[in-house]
Amino acid sequence: MAVIGIAILYAIFYVWLGVDSPGAMKVTDLPLLLVGYGFGASFVALFAQLGGGIYTKAADVGADLVGKVEQGIPEDDPRNPAVIADLVGDNVGDCAARGADLFESIAAEIISAMILGGTMAQRCKIEDPSGFILFPLVVHSFDLVISSVGIFSIRNKGDLGAIEDPMSILQKGYSVTIILAVLTFGLSTRWMLYTEQAPSAWLNFALCGLVGIMTAYIFVWITKYYTDYKHEPVRTLALSSSTGHGTNIIAGVSLGLESTALPVLVISVAIVSAYWLGHTSGLVDESGTPTGGLFGTAVATMGMLSTAAYVLTMDMFGPIADNAGGIVEMSQQPESVREITDVLDAVGNTTKATTKGFAIGSAALASFLLFSAYMDEVATFANVPFNQVDIAIPEVFVGGLLGSMLIYLFSAWACSAVGRTAQEVVNEVRRQFIERPGIMDYKEKPDYGRCVSIVASASLREMIKPGALAIISPIVVGFVFRVLGYYTGHPLLGAKVVAAMLMFATVSGILMALFLNTAGGAWDNAKKYIETGALGGKGSDSHKAAVTGDTVGDPFKDTAGPSLHVLIKMLATITLVMAPIFL
Amino acid sequence: MAVIGIAILYAIFYVWLGVDSPGAMKVTDLPLLLVGYGFGASFVALFAQLGGGIYTKAADVGADLVGKVEQGIPEDDPRNPAVIADLVGDNVGDCAARGADLFESIAAEIISAMILGGTMAQRCKIEDPSGFILFPLVVHSFDLVISSVGIFSIRNKGDLGAIEDPMSILQKGYSVTIILAVLTFGLSTRWMLYTEQAPSAWLNFALCGLVGIMTAYIFVWITKYYTDYKHEPVRTLALSSSTGHGTNIIAGVSLGLESTALPVLVISVAIVSAYWLGHTSGLVDESGTPTGGLFGTAVATMGMLSTAAYVLTMDMFGPIADNAGGIVEMSQQPESVREITDVLDAVGNTTKATTKGFAIGSAALASFLLFSAYMDEVATFANVPFNQVDIAIPEVFVGGLLGSMLIYLFSAWACSAVGRTAQEVVNEVRRQFIERPGIMDYKEKPDYGRCVSIVASASLREMIKPGALAIISPIVVGFVFRVLGYYTGHPLLGAKVVAAMLMFATVSGILMALFLNTAGGAWDNAKKYIETGALGGKGSDSHKAAVTGDTVGDPFKDTAGPSLHVLIKMLATITLVMAPIFL
Repeated sequence: MAVIGIAILYAIFYVWLGVDSPGAMKVTDLPLLLVGYGFGASFVALFAQLGGGIYTKAADVGADLVGKVEQGIPEDDPRNPAVIADLVGDNVGDCAARGADLFESIAAEIISAMILGGTMAQRCKIEDPSGFILFPLVVHSFDLVISSVGIFSIRNKGDLGAIEDPMSILQKGYSVTIILAVLTFGLSTRWMLYTEQAPSAWLNFALCGLVGIMTAYIFVWITKYYTDYKHEPVRTLALSSSTGHGTNIIAGVSLGLESTALPVLVISVAIVSAYWLGHTSGLVDESGTPTGGLFGTAVATMGMLSTAAYVLTMDMFGPIADNAGGIVEMSQQPESVREITDVLDAVGNTTKATTKGFAIGSAALASFLLFSAYMDEVATFANVPFNQVDIAIPEVFVGGLLGSMLIYLFSAWACSAVGRTAQEVVNEVRRQFIERPGIMDYKEKPDYGRCVSIVASASLREMIKPGALAIISPIVVGFVFRVLGYYTGHPLLGAKVVAAMLMFATVSGILMALFLNTAGGAWDNAKKYIETGALGGKGSDSHKAAVTGDTVGDPFKDTAGPSLHVLIKMLATITLVMAPIFL
Repeated sequence: MAVIGIAILYAIFYVWLGVDSPGAMKVTDLPLLLVGYGFGASFVALFAQLGGGIYTKAADVGADLVGKVEQGIPEDDPRNPAVIADLVGDNVGDCAARGADLFESIAAEIISAMILGGTMAQRCKIEDPSGFILFPLVVHSFDLVISSVGIFSIRNKGDLGAIEDPMSILQKGYSVTIILAVLTFGLSTRWMLYTEQAPSAWLNFALCGLVGIMTAYIFVWITKYYTDYKHEPVRTLALSSSTGHGTNIIAGVSLGLESTALPVLVISVAIVSAYWLGHTSGLVDESGTPTGGLFGTAVATMGMLSTAAYVLTMDMFGPIADNAGGIVEMSQQPESVREITDVLDAVGNTTKATTKGFAIGSAALASFLLFSAYMDEVATFANVPFNQVDIAIPEVFVGGLLGSMLIYLFSAWACSAVGRTAQEVVNEVRRQFIERPGIMDYKEKPDYGRCVSIVASASLREMIKPGALAIISPIVVGFVFRVLGYYTGHPLLGAKVVAAMLMFATVSGILMALFLNTAGGAWDNAKKYIETGALGGKGSDSHKAAVTGDTVGDPFKDTAGPSLHVLIKMLATITLVMAPIFL
């Protein structure tokens, strides 16, 4: 959809509106394209992710608190009035929301890379710049093909009766996709980015793509290491459950905080090396200055997202396995069937976590492109050079402080929204159990619809406050400092403060999202690990402590964390749209 | 000690070493003073706070896990072999460590304000600059006098038998101190900062001081609001304990994340308004450019710290009350006595939290001075202008990303150090209960010394990893990017990347510390609130959930959080000392 939508937009702008020279598609046209598509995509994605996250976790926590804890009935038991809301929530929060998130990443990245490619080609006086402009569309068309091949490569299993390790099957398909991505990316760069001005530039850009693909692969691997119970961290976390609820939470928080280190190192290396590969590509402007640096970063982002379709497939695996387990429970299949779906469910937790790692990594890379788009736009509107954000100026530093704070406040409100909505579900489920005592003996059917409508309306209501915070605060900050700058003789103050706000919010958002996602995934799988029989198994004190960790992790990993991915891109697009009022 | 130490240092430099013109005390002398005093102070403070924090919380958590949870004996029971380590820990972690923290804040702030005042007076050609240089020493001498008056003002109680609300008594003394601070600060500015070049400048600086004093007061008030069980947030947190361990933790994390918003807004207003008050003070350099902005921020920091002695007194109240409670329990006093010490203990939790709020607020203001000291130093050494840190440069942005990550990794390691050391205490206490069965019947005396030596040696060992991270990472980052800059033709790259690292680490550190401190304090008092009989009281399910929150909050508020205050100042001083190797 992203490829088709943007291709159509491009055709309209390029052919129909008569912008016949590709060089004319420059920064001033950017808002036209970005407002229409990127901003729309991130606006929808924020609400899909935030609302969906509140929906799914309020239903999940509410169902568990009354069903599992108070009434002692198993998870997904058909007697629980909130069970349907819980299962629907998996689709709303995981499938729909993550789809919207990655759609937005891909759309924003294609658009900004096309514009960057176009302006760079124009500046370097490349005769036929169409290759540089259309390159992102080609990469993402290949994504569909190679991801499909990856998916089909795991279709044919040898023996249908034997249980294979689902994670290794998924990984095999991912490896196939990765190898094909390297090959097709190399071919695309040679085909689209070859220019006589700099004959070896395509090779540098191919290496940028490789940096992106490697980054994606390493991100998936790191997340797997921290959230899969086959590895040390989750085992240590499970062990800490044996000394109680408190130590489990401390260990999970430490694990989550620590898990931010490696991804940040990888992203840092990726940004710097992609920039330098682009910078040294041989592409120079009229004055001989190397100009390919930023485009190098853009190509690395494309490389990272060049396997997006396969990664999204792995993500969808999670809620499907979760729902299958629910159907097995509700249709009262034998225990052996549930055991199989439990294995699938645990793998689904890991793949969901890895997709989030992938999404935050690509958001981190894409945000750097959006910064430059914003700064280019300000420069164009104000008609002055604007290429630095100097945090040694007190107001700019304050902008950064406010940007980081925004992330904390948003996360707080997202988590507490889940708590409040879950409380409404708890009250409704308790009410049904009291008013319809026949439910527990299967004599009466619970009113599933009531719980569904409660979470649906509550999640819509609860997302207003954090959503408004995300949209209004950059506008207010930009406007206040614009006025302050006007009275103190600093014409660009508003734009600079907003730029710092954006950058600090991005950095804090990346770290906070990594922390929340990984801690949540690890808690969930520490519980799953104990449920396989380790450390006393189901019903033991360790298991109870692990369930506490899982409950805490729910809003972390499925509401606040993923909403932050969208938030940081949303902030970038909203500042792009609103830039004129800061000047 | 800070006033005397710096006064002596100043006398040595100024009189004995013959630096007879005060204007000669400029940026190049800065390392001499800072290395000798500021860096030493922050080095000791980091280890006092980190080691002390691990010590106190490992002993506390370890003692509680076996004593309260496994054996069911009360807190501070003399049969618990870890009880002495727990009580000693209160002094090590709260008194000694917080003292070192504030000593370092005051020392760093006096030194940087003296240098700023001296260079500014020189640049503005003020005839007698000694007022600007000695001003911080005068302010802090007054601090001792007015805080003593504040302390003595609460000495005389009417009726010795009646129980008064200890919090309101402490607040009354604080109000007295605040009022005296406003008066003496105003007098000091008129006396020391009056100059004929700008006759009304002293008034602007007096207002800067007022901004600082107000900031301190509002910070204390905000922290009190979020951590005292008389107010809404802790009551809501206590209520969330009634639905289980998980909801208690979610609510506490949300509360902590949310509590960062108001302090950040206050600090933002303080930085911008103090800067503008200084900027418009009328002090101009030879070319007519206003130069007082940064000194305005410095004066605001002095205002904030002008009641430091009283705030430190309130902090010491906490561990004294805690230890008194321990002695009451161990000497088997009647229940009514313990009830009184419990009230004092709850107040102590709030005052400890407010001191941390005060410490982080002053660290935030002081860090802005240290940035400029660093940038001035780089400019002097490299002999080029260095007054901007442009985060739109990829490497500089990466420096910021690494700085923020440093805070997360440090917090993770500090928390997990507590977990591991507590585990050692648990094993030792369990061993003593098994090998000496007479302990439980008061027939045998537990080996207290063994537990003390275990936490002492473990806390020294455990602080190596996070301590080394804090010291080594800015050096490594600066050196790597210096080399990278050398090969790519960017001479100042290392210094710029380190500046961004420092600023992002400061912002992330402020937010993370606010989150950890407030969440921890709120959890502790939510438990205390339930123990007063609310929501089922002691022994209820709500109480158990609240105890979990308290356990989680322990390493948050007493190890990781306060260590971050020191860490951000430590990073600033270490980059100051190491700046030459980044160039």
